Amino acid sequence: MAYDLYYWPAIPGRGEYVRLVLEAAEMPYRDVARLPESEGGGSGAMMAFVAGRHGHRTPFAPPFLVDGDLLISQTAEICAFLGERHGLAPEDEADRLFARSIALTTADFVNEAHDAHHPIGVEDYYEDQRSEAKRRATGFRDRRMPKYLGWYERLIAANPTGSGHLVGDRLTYADLGLFQTLAGLAYAFPTRMAGIGGDYPKTVALAARVASRPAVAAYLTSERRIAFNEDGIFRHYPELDGA
Amino acid sequence: MAYDLYYWPAIPGRGEYVRLVLEAAEMPYRDVARLPESEGGGSGAMMAFVAGRHGHRTPFAPPFLVDGDLLISQTAEICAFLGERHGLAPEDEADRLFARSIALTTADFVNEAHDAHHPIGVEDYYEDQRSEAKRRATGFRDRRMPKYLGWYERLIAANPTGSGHLVGDRLTYADLGLFQTLAGLAYAFPTRMAGIGGDYPKTVALAARVASRPAVAAYLTSERRIAFNEDGIFRHYPELDGA
Repeated sequence: MAYDLYYWPAIPGRGEYVRLVLEAAEMPYRDVARLPESEGGGSGAMMAFVAGRHGHRTPFAPPFLVDGDLLISQTAEICAFLGERHGLAPEDEADRLFARSIALTTADFVNEAHDAHHPIGVEDYYEDQRSEAKRRATGFRDRRMPKYLGWYERLIAANPTGSGHLVGDRLTYADLGLFQTLAGLAYAFPTRMAGIGGDYPKTVALAARVASRPAVAAYLTSERRIAFNEDGIFRHYPELDGA
Repeated sequence: MAYDLYYWPAIPGRGEYVRLVLEAAEMPYRDVARLPESEGGGSGAMMAFVAGRHGHRTPFAPPFLVDGDLLISQTAEICAFLGERHGLAPEDEADRLFARSIALTTADFVNEAHDAHHPIGVEDYYEDQRSEAKRRATGFRDRRMPKYLGWYERLIAANPTGSGHLVGDRLTYADLGLFQTLAGLAYAFPTRMAGIGGDYPKTVALAARVASRPAVAAYLTSERRIAFNEDGIFRHYPELDGA
């Protein structure tokens, strides 16, 4: 049976991290909120879960994945669950645990990328926190981006298998998450990424390698891939890019 | 062999979530950064891992747990790992996965509690972002606290075992995390919690039950328990409590 993924239909957001694992693993799935209501889709079908109308395992927020009795929420946990089930995780226990640590650290990085445009109120408009966003984005660009990107670069360099991956000798969901994060940063902060991308050659090369993997490449050019936009997590506001 | 926990020595912070699982499970551990340097302790010993001087599995930041070859970072992942190993997690697969989703959602709540006093710069002083913090804290108190607390309350109410726990029929690391979060909120936002605590009777009762469990109660009165303070995640700034 296909997996049911629930996420907001009009943004890549955190749901995209899950989609990439499903697509790279070539697993069938329904992207439920993007289906017509006549097929049980729509945001209403998703929010019925959040409202607790589908049993006692109520997710706090999308994304969440439903597989029969299982309901899993939180992006990194869903990705780890799928990756470990479908050959996109390390075999070795220590590496498996470390892949989880990496994916969760990427989730922190993504939260900070979001807060660069929404430092004051998660539920408020960007227009009401523009000046604060400008301040927060400066610290994000100058200090946080190099800190996270430098960490990925060191992990790839230190990987004893020399595979060019973040952990172990094969593609994992941790690599897929890095690819999506770099894509989001290139969209939201093109000037900054053009300036510092060269400092992280192994990281950039890994992201390119992920994108060229046949199942991923086919997905990226399909209609299933949602373009970045200014309702999502990675938003291109030139004033936040230091431009 | 005892576990080695690495976390900042002077704040409860995120490390406290891990300590509570270790203490409730009555597992021996070394709180390494709090040991004297003559015993291999201190913050320097911790930061050597972050600098990549202990093998290729480099954590991005504390807390992290070392157990032989295993190095696990990210608070919720460490708690899930320990809880599943030592009887503080559900047995059932669906409940196990849901406990992980809960712990990760609590980690998001904790991040937001932190950002209430640090909305602009993670690495900057509170004093340089006081007015922005006041705005962000208002939204946190008025909207985010009820949203998270109401979710916990609904989970306990909907738990089919009627155990009073968040998931399944026994104490789990998800409950321990809820206890610590409520304790932190009561410290940081005493006025607000006095005002709304009564709206979440099952949640407050669960936290009290966790605190009265013998191993936890003994720990809470020991010198190992670090008091909340204004260098940590939960900080008591009266102006942010709406007082």
